[in-house]
Amino acid sequence: MKQFAVIGLGRFGSSVATALARMGCQVLAIDSDAEKVEAIMDEVTHAIQADARDEEALKAAGIRNVDVAIVAIGENVEANILVTLIVKELGVKCVVAKALNDLHAKVLAKIGADKIVFPERDMGVRVARTLAAGNVLEHIDLSPDYSIVEIAASHRLAGKTLGQLNLRARHGIMVVAIKHGDNIVVAPGAEDVVREGDILVLIGPTKVLERLEERE
Amino acid sequence: MKQFAVIGLGRFGSSVATALARMGCQVLAIDSDAEKVEAIMDEVTHAIQADARDEEALKAAGIRNVDVAIVAIGENVEANILVTLIVKELGVKCVVAKALNDLHAKVLAKIGADKIVFPERDMGVRVARTLAAGNVLEHIDLSPDYSIVEIAASHRLAGKTLGQLNLRARHGIMVVAIKHGDNIVVAPGAEDVVREGDILVLIGPTKVLERLEERE
Amino acid sequence: MKQFAVIGLGRFGSSVATALARMGCQVLAIDSDAEKVEAIMDEVTHAIQADARDEEALKAAGIRNVDVAIVAIGENVEANILVTLIVKELGVKCVVAKALNDLHAKVLAKIGADKIVFPERDMGVRVARTLAAGNVLEHIDLSPDYSIVEIAASHRLAGKTLGQLNLRARHGIMVVAIKHGDNIVVAPGAEDVVREGDILVLIGPTKVLERLEERE
Amino acid sequence: MKQFAVIGLGRFGSSVATALARMGCQVLAIDSDAEKVEAIMDEVTHAIQADARDEEALKAAGIRNVDVAIVAIGENVEANILVTLIVKELGVKCVVAKALNDLHAKVLAKIGADKIVFPERDMGVRVARTLAAGNVLEHIDLSPDYSIVEIAASHRLAGKTLGQLNLRARHGIMVVAIKHGDNIVVAPGAEDVVREGDILVLIGPTKVLERLEERE
Amino acid sequence: MKQFAVIGLGRFGSSVATALARMGCQVLAIDSDAEKVEAIMDEVTHAIQADARDEEALKAAGIRNVDVAIVAIGENVEANILVTLIVKELGVKCVVAKALNDLHAKVLAKIGADKIVFPERDMGVRVARTLAAGNVLEHIDLSPDYSIVEIAASHRLAGKTLGQLNLRARHGIMVVAIKHGDNIVVAPGAEDVVREGDILVLIGPTKVLERLEERE
Amino acid sequence: MKQFAVIGLGRFGSSVATALARMGCQVLAIDSDAEKVEAIMDEVTHAIQADARDEEALKAAGIRNVDVAIVAIGENVEANILVTLIVKELGVKCVVAKALNDLHAKVLAKIGADKIVFPERDMGVRVARTLAAGNVLEHIDLSPDYSIVEIAASHRLAGKTLGQLNLRARHGIMVVAIKHGDNIVVAPGAEDVVREGDILVLIGPTKVLERLEERE
Amino acid sequence: MKQFAVIGLGRFGSSVATALARMGCQVLAIDSDAEKVEAIMDEVTHAIQADARDEEALKAAGIRNVDVAIVAIGENVEANILVTLIVKELGVKCVVAKALNDLHAKVLAKIGADKIVFPERDMGVRVARTLAAGNVLEHIDLSPDYSIVEIAASHRLAGKTLGQLNLRARHGIMVVAIKHGDNIVVAPGAEDVVREGDILVLIGPTKVLERLEERE
Amino acid sequence: MKQFAVIGLGRFGSSVATALARMGCQVLAIDSDAEKVEAIMDEVTHAIQADARDEEALKAAGIRNVDVAIVAIGENVEANILVTLIVKELGVKCVVAKALNDLHAKVLAKIGADKIVFPERDMGVRVARTLAAGNVLEHIDLSPDYSIVEIAASHRLAGKTLGQLNLRARHGIMVVAIKHGDNIVVAPGAEDVVREGDILVLIGPTKVLERLEERE
Repeated sequence: MKQFAVIGLGRFGSSVATALARMGCQVLAIDSDAEKVEAIMDEVTHAIQADARDEEALKAAGIRNVDVAIVAIGENVEANILVTLIVKELGVKCVVAKALNDLHAKVLAKIGADKIVFPERDMGVRVARTLAAGNVLEHIDLSPDYSIVEIAASHRLAGKTLGQLNLRARHGIMVVAIKHGDNIVVAPGAEDVVREGDILVLIGPTKVLERLEERE
Repeated sequence: MKQFAVIGLGRFGSSVATALARMGCQVLAIDSDAEKVEAIMDEVTHAIQADARDEEALKAAGIRNVDVAIVAIGENVEANILVTLIVKELGVKCVVAKALNDLHAKVLAKIGADKIVFPERDMGVRVARTLAAGNVLEHIDLSPDYSIVEIAASHRLAGKTLGQLNLRARHGIMVVAIKHGDNIVVAPGAEDVVREGDILVLIGPTKVLERLEERE
Repeated sequence: MKQFAVIGLGRFGSSVATALARMGCQVLAIDSDAEKVEAIMDEVTHAIQADARDEEALKAAGIRNVDVAIVAIGENVEANILVTLIVKELGVKCVVAKALNDLHAKVLAKIGADKIVFPERDMGVRVARTLAAGNVLEHIDLSPDYSIVEIAASHRLAGKTLGQLNLRARHGIMVVAIKHGDNIVVAPGAEDVVREGDILVLIGPTKVLERLEERE
Repeated sequence: MKQFAVIGLGRFGSSVATALARMGCQVLAIDSDAEKVEAIMDEVTHAIQADARDEEALKAAGIRNVDVAIVAIGENVEANILVTLIVKELGVKCVVAKALNDLHAKVLAKIGADKIVFPERDMGVRVARTLAAGNVLEHIDLSPDYSIVEIAASHRLAGKTLGQLNLRARHGIMVVAIKHGDNIVVAPGAEDVVREGDILVLIGPTKVLERLEERE
Repeated sequence: MKQFAVIGLGRFGSSVATALARMGCQVLAIDSDAEKVEAIMDEVTHAIQADARDEEALKAAGIRNVDVAIVAIGENVEANILVTLIVKELGVKCVVAKALNDLHAKVLAKIGADKIVFPERDMGVRVARTLAAGNVLEHIDLSPDYSIVEIAASHRLAGKTLGQLNLRARHGIMVVAIKHGDNIVVAPGAEDVVREGDILVLIGPTKVLERLEERE
Repeated sequence: MKQFAVIGLGRFGSSVATALARMGCQVLAIDSDAEKVEAIMDEVTHAIQADARDEEALKAAGIRNVDVAIVAIGENVEANILVTLIVKELGVKCVVAKALNDLHAKVLAKIGADKIVFPERDMGVRVARTLAAGNVLEHIDLSPDYSIVEIAASHRLAGKTLGQLNLRARHGIMVVAIKHGDNIVVAPGAEDVVREGDILVLIGPTKVLERLEERE
Repeated sequence: MKQFAVIGLGRFGSSVATALARMGCQVLAIDSDAEKVEAIMDEVTHAIQADARDEEALKAAGIRNVDVAIVAIGENVEANILVTLIVKELGVKCVVAKALNDLHAKVLAKIGADKIVFPERDMGVRVARTLAAGNVLEHIDLSPDYSIVEIAASHRLAGKTLGQLNLRARHGIMVVAIKHGDNIVVAPGAEDVVREGDILVLIGPTKVLERLEERE
Repeated sequence: MKQFAVIGLGRFGSSVATALARMGCQVLAIDSDAEKVEAIMDEVTHAIQADARDEEALKAAGIRNVDVAIVAIGENVEANILVTLIVKELGVKCVVAKALNDLHAKVLAKIGADKIVFPERDMGVRVARTLAAGNVLEHIDLSPDYSIVEIAASHRLAGKTLGQLNLRARHGIMVVAIKHGDNIVVAPGAEDVVREGDILVLIGPTKVLERLEERE
């Protein structure tokens, strides 16, 4: 089983730590704030109060045994950079660091961060995407032009069979799955009917998917 | 074309505003901090410096004409709540508000927020998911048990045709698409070969998908 | 006997708590500031130091047993709102909350506050009323046009019987009571004499009452 | 017409100033905070930004022409005391000062304040009173033992005539008025019927009034 | 023996307390700052750490037994005023209070301070006086026009007998004493010689004394 | 006429500056705080707003023309020391500096201060002296054992002639002057009568003077 | 002629900038603090007030034309790191950065700093060295074992010729130069006499040089 | 062996203390910050947490036994001055103090500091010197016109014998030593060859040394 360390237990860090633990991973959570440590104690394998800029403290906490360390320290850029370097120097193979902006990310890359995340920025883009195309619930970019989306079927699509809609021929879109309530039909056939409120999983050209409703 | 207002231009808010504008939406961006307003000025339709708790200022900015208002005010819970209420009272049909925790979300729901988002928490879960299953790049939950994932094919899968892998029969997994570099094959056939480094889009039971590599 | 909780022991909250206790009610007083808790300890049934935003702490304090909870938290609007919601969610039947302004009050109403008070604003109106009409000591609005007032009789009214003053016929005012020193005559008769310094309780049209002295 | 000055435009002070102005009084409003002055500007006769500890500024503002000055400065006890003294020394006949506690009030009395008010404390007592006796809406103490109250009639009293209730004989209580919706009957007769939801104005012994409902 | 309390152990207060103790008085020293209390502990009869605004603490310290209380609290005008009132109310016969300016002094007088001192201002006047008349070492005003001064004799006066100088006839000045080193001659005679560096104690018209040197 | 500069216009400094100006001296007053400069502007010859640590500013203000500079900077020991040195280096002949304690005074002496004053400490001693011996109004030490004092005559001394009191023979005290109201008798005779409330100026052994009343 | 930019004008930065300018170099000095910019304005070629984290501002200032940029930002590690990266990315060939400690230095090295200096630490070592060996004025390490030093000749060495001292034979030390007052004799001969107070420049084994005096 | 005390353990002070200890000296390190004391504990003879302005604490620490005390207190000029005086008064023979600027240094000199250092300023000059003349590694001023420098030989000098270069005749420069890797030749002969990358130690006129490369 993989072992993780999450350093910095703000909203992002504690969410990462808790989610990893729920997926059954070993999680070592570290923060200098005793309250935050206590709040997560029951959710993770180990929770330790320590200043992560103190190399000895990190060693004592066993940081060198983890497979992945996530440096989720947020506002304090100095600490974020120094801790990323320390963890990398201590030999952790994969270090994921949270960046506030591009310049910060460039520093992190230069000092050896293996993966850099921008939680607020990425989430902003996701939220924008679901809002811009009102019925899109989820979205994955496959390439600059191709996407998978999860959309809620409106009345325009409802009441027709996939054969009638004929999305593949008309729009180059393939229906991957249809979800009626709790029931999921993977790779549905031409005779399957779309009902209002169904969730459709579609794959196809991004531009077409974003405006599918308007076209129907 | 849809009209949006984004109130609060921190990292999350400015990311939402910029992404919406890039998708071609009309975006009105509002913050009380002149520097943040100036920084986004060239990216959005209108950027206005105003205290969003001032109802008159919001009216003057034309908030009542927007289809969706995103209240992205972060740390100041009081302002976040009051602005959400003001915007709702001014008649904006859809108000999306950022919450810090469940209790905060409950208040937002009670005062009429139409959609509530937790950017840091949601992003934490996403990052956790891609880290826990090392080769998973993206993940959408279809139901508590079913997911779509985008995974990088390792050497275990590589060099075989889909027919040989026979994922459907063996694991209940359907291959939705294979991406070789910039090229995407949607609904690939049994004779399509998986090469190392290919990206596979799969649909199937979540538990199986998370451990697919270990099973091959 | 009714049970009350008062959360927030500033000047308003501690006054409510103390007054309730003096009227023989059971009062649970809660504040996060140990000094304030200690100061009220001998006046109320129970006084507990706790952060009222901590649902568990409120439960442990027995908040669910009270009939009425008064959220008297003042300057911290965020805490005021969250605590009001928590208390309501915990099932307290009647929650009274202190608001700073109309917008704040609207939020409180939406999250379920049963009664909302504005101590400083209401007291300002009362003080203004007694100052504007110099001899008015107390004032209750019965309707937009009708009031009961308690006034100090000046030399203009003094030395006459109620029959002579004939306030009912001349001004539509009824004399409810006359107070001579410690002695109160309820529903006084026409022969009762008004002496300078007597306190009169009158009921009648507000406009006439406010200018009664000037008219005599 | 009486002339007032209100010094200190917090929630209490601005409420006093606005209420006085609405009753048609001349009101001079003073605060050292320009924002508060601007906020009240349209409500009062004159609004001036000045440090009230500056005697010359007060003179220039015409403080010596007012009949009553209300020193509503709240948290800054030093300023509250010094301004009260300055205003008194400048010859204002009636100075009303806001006190935070008994010791503060004693200082104010010694330096010449003509009337001292405790808005939060007094309002706390009022709120406590209406809460303790659930149906009491308003309350005026006539003496330590006698009060006038405004109560909402519950089902226990409803459907009977005043003659049937016979409150005077049974409890020593006189019914001063009955309010049905917007309609007020002053000095109602024995045949008048009490309906559920009516507001009754009663005069009588405090103890009996507080428990009237329980006794019926 | 007289008993004193000194409340507030800043530079002025600790100097008063120490000087009183050295003159053999009983001194109770009080400050809320533990460091200041400890620093004076060995110099006075009792030194107690307490907030002097807490009446009970003052009583417990035995403030009611002292003959004189000096309120030497400096910068905190509010505390200075409240403590002066408390001490006076507790029945201390003589309360000396330190004032920062005339307005503050007026408040202190109104609340009952028996003596008011302005250490910095008074010392400023003294220092000014010795500087303005370069050879004046000490100065006491007897009346607006008459003073006693202690001056250092310069060469202009030196080498002459008092008879020769004849200060009484020429300037209306009487020589009270001459100090040669450690030796003091009180009421010196006409034959006594003034030597350079002697200290003369003179009584006479202030204006003449201030310019004595220039006239010789 | 002598020229003075006073640097630092706190309570002590402004008192020195004002007193010097009232005695007819030329006074240059300097402070970095514009409000303090403005407050003293009308009292002194020149008042300048400048940071006295700026040597050029001091030169421009004409500091080199003064006879005496008083460095009255209080709490900021660093500025007090540096300015004293600058002023001395600029060639001012006599520099008087205010010290907070003995160590500070030693630094000032080493860097060339010509005279060092401790206003609060000295005033503390003076106040203590007048309080310890209740009737002593003023006190000058002539030597460790000899003093001049100004005392208020109590009933014990009143009604007797100086001859009867015979203070010289009995106590070694000489009566320098008697003040009846505004009238001063210098070197009074044996037949002069002491009346209650008279002010006596006495010279004699300190110990005897301090207890004179008790001995009579 | 070489062109330099110095970013951060604290004590170290302004000393670098001024020294470079005095040696005839072109110096561009940058700080976000207007006072510091003004203070150095007359000493350097250009002095500009700008936030160096603003890439555009640095470009506008012409940073790309300099040969060497010294990042002398001190306490703000974040700014120090980001500015070093920006300057390097803008193409400045040689970037010298000030580090606070080893970890900080490692980050600077990774992001591309060409030279890293530790002013306080290096100076601490230098001062220690001159203090440990009392007569050593300057010291250069040539290798771990060999040094050049500048020492003040004490009485032990004084009065002898170099031939008599014979330092080369006895200690392996060569006398590079002797300084008598302002006069320097390079490569002195055996007949040259060492006088007390002369400065000797010696080259030899470090251990011997440090204890030379004790050995003589 | 010499005994040292270092007071103030910032970057400069701790560097001095550590360097002294490494050279085998006895070092007493003092700071008021417990963290700094702990950090150096293992490097020095004794490390003590104390406020150095407390004379008794310094005595207790044994400050009077040291030969040299270094007052390395940085930003707090007041403490720096007072501690320097205390240490000097306690009889320490040699006191070295860190100054921030010339004025500060003058105060330190007047109160008795035996040696005054300006670490940041001196290091700034050193860094400037090595940067201005790109190949100069170290530099010692012998007189205003004469220096010793350590330079890296570039290709211009490389490949020639000292005889060929003939620096003495052509430039008045003497070659003191040549360093090839770890090997040092002191007083090299005319036949010694300079190779690229060799370090040369030269003595000669400063101006010529600074431009030597350009001249070759």
